[in-house]
Amino acid sequence: MSADGLPMVVPAPGLPARVRIHEVGARDGLQNEKTAVPTAVKAEFIRRLAGAGLTTIEATSFVHPKWVPQLADAEELFPQVSDLPGVALPVLVPNRRGLDRALALGAGRVAVFASATESFARANLNRTLDESLAVFEPVVRQAKDQGVHVRGYVSMCFGDPWEGAVPAYQVARVCTALRDMGCDELSLGDTIGVATAGQVRELLALLNDRGVPTEMIGVHFHDTYGQALANTLAALQHGVTTVDASAGGLGGCPYAKSATGNLATEDLVWMLHGLGIATGVDLGRLTATSVWMAEQLGRPSPSRTVRALSHKDQ
Amino acid sequence: MSADGLPMVVPAPGLPARVRIHEVGARDGLQNEKTAVPTAVKAEFIRRLAGAGLTTIEATSFVHPKWVPQLADAEELFPQVSDLPGVALPVLVPNRRGLDRALALGAGRVAVFASATESFARANLNRTLDESLAVFEPVVRQAKDQGVHVRGYVSMCFGDPWEGAVPAYQVARVCTALRDMGCDELSLGDTIGVATAGQVRELLALLNDRGVPTEMIGVHFHDTYGQALANTLAALQHGVTTVDASAGGLGGCPYAKSATGNLATEDLVWMLHGLGIATGVDLGRLTATSVWMAEQLGRPSPSRTVRALSHKDQ
Repeated sequence: MSADGLPMVVPAPGLPARVRIHEVGARDGLQNEKTAVPTAVKAEFIRRLAGAGLTTIEATSFVHPKWVPQLADAEELFPQVSDLPGVALPVLVPNRRGLDRALALGAGRVAVFASATESFARANLNRTLDESLAVFEPVVRQAKDQGVHVRGYVSMCFGDPWEGAVPAYQVARVCTALRDMGCDELSLGDTIGVATAGQVRELLALLNDRGVPTEMIGVHFHDTYGQALANTLAALQHGVTTVDASAGGLGGCPYAKSATGNLATEDLVWMLHGLGIATGVDLGRLTATSVWMAEQLGRPSPSRTVRALSHKDQ
Repeated sequence: MSADGLPMVVPAPGLPARVRIHEVGARDGLQNEKTAVPTAVKAEFIRRLAGAGLTTIEATSFVHPKWVPQLADAEELFPQVSDLPGVALPVLVPNRRGLDRALALGAGRVAVFASATESFARANLNRTLDESLAVFEPVVRQAKDQGVHVRGYVSMCFGDPWEGAVPAYQVARVCTALRDMGCDELSLGDTIGVATAGQVRELLALLNDRGVPTEMIGVHFHDTYGQALANTLAALQHGVTTVDASAGGLGGCPYAKSATGNLATEDLVWMLHGLGIATGVDLGRLTATSVWMAEQLGRPSPSRTVRALSHKDQ
């Protein structure tokens, strides 16, 4: 720690000079809240995240309100934040209808949410894996036709609650299918947080072998077993420069059984800045944002860095 | 995750085949409890840790009861566990008097607790750094004369709450002094949990340059900023094979301001076993032990792996 409460900077060789953080708290975090957060609070959250220096902020999801009532205000919310200068605001679109809604509001970036396993495709999307890919294909094509950037989420890349271990070749098949459809970017999700560093390395190497360049790969780790940051380090060592994280660790209460435990953006930024890796994020402002959001939600942030830095100020 | 609730095993190149976990929960963990844990519970805890496969279990501290009343029962406790087969039970000794007490009970391993900074030496030991080293010198010599294994803890190796950043050369000076006294092993402590992976790498490399072999180095990371496991991975990549951890993450309540946040042994074991690194630990039995200990203490374990695995069983 240096005197200003920031990590001491000691770079390590072989790591990227800059990482782009794909902030998911406003979508992945808030969609897991029991009760919907008011639209004005969501908009303020996104504005504060942008003010803290985040430049890619996943804003909401154009899913049917029946499935995710927490994000039923997507049409209302998006125009309130879409003019933030220098900030990309990707939105999740489950199907053509969702894409149409997003395009009607001028969204420049969308994301589809695929699964690496049959079990999760059936549980989450009520389709076989191949059926779900078939649904995404025209969505991705239409988005690309409109000049829209497309991210493909691939969930359950390292383990699945029904199937257990997930072989890397199975994940690679879904990733190459999404790439072939035209996805600009992939996000490899460890949805249940079980991965360790060897698995991360193995999957990234296999994807390279299959012609998926590291530049189009993001990683999305969960802290369910405390592994998210160690896995991130392994991904950085492989050359990955896009990392998903959630401000304050929003997304699944760590005290609940259903803990999903998104990697907290603050814990990630502490590591990246300590390694001399630029992010553009002001850690103090980001922590203040998460403390503010925790007050809105009525419970403390599970991020260890948020707790440490906010206690320091008291 | 594989079907049996253990991590999927995918080794990564360049990592050690085996790691020795130096379990500190019974000493470092319980000395931070507000009220002393009954001696019978401590003894049962140590026996259960041994039953889970841990082979190095720091048992207690022969410090003056005035300073650490939580461990005032060292004389009573130690004989109750000292016959565990195949288990080393190091004990902390702050000075000659403590060493005499430990030797009188037949302790075969002791540890001294040094500081890398002047500020912490003054705050914790009420001495200058050099004065504190002068106190340890005859302790280490006497222990070695009796054929006793000596570990030297070095605290504040990566940051200090008063001094901020701690330069690696300053840490190396304390480490080489302890080695020159005859310490068999050093434990590099990130007492306030601020280190990132580049600092770890830099210090380990500097110690090698100064003739301190990696084999005599253990690492002791705290999770205050969520960095402990990423830092451990960096240390393993440097060849470190001794890692300190605390069952269930005991040691400083993570919900309190004074959170010290020891790395939880279960989170460490999840990573090591996922990487195919042998530890001898049965993760299921260790988790059950931490759940039992949490019941004794009346609050849940902060270990994410303990929470995830124990929720799974319900």
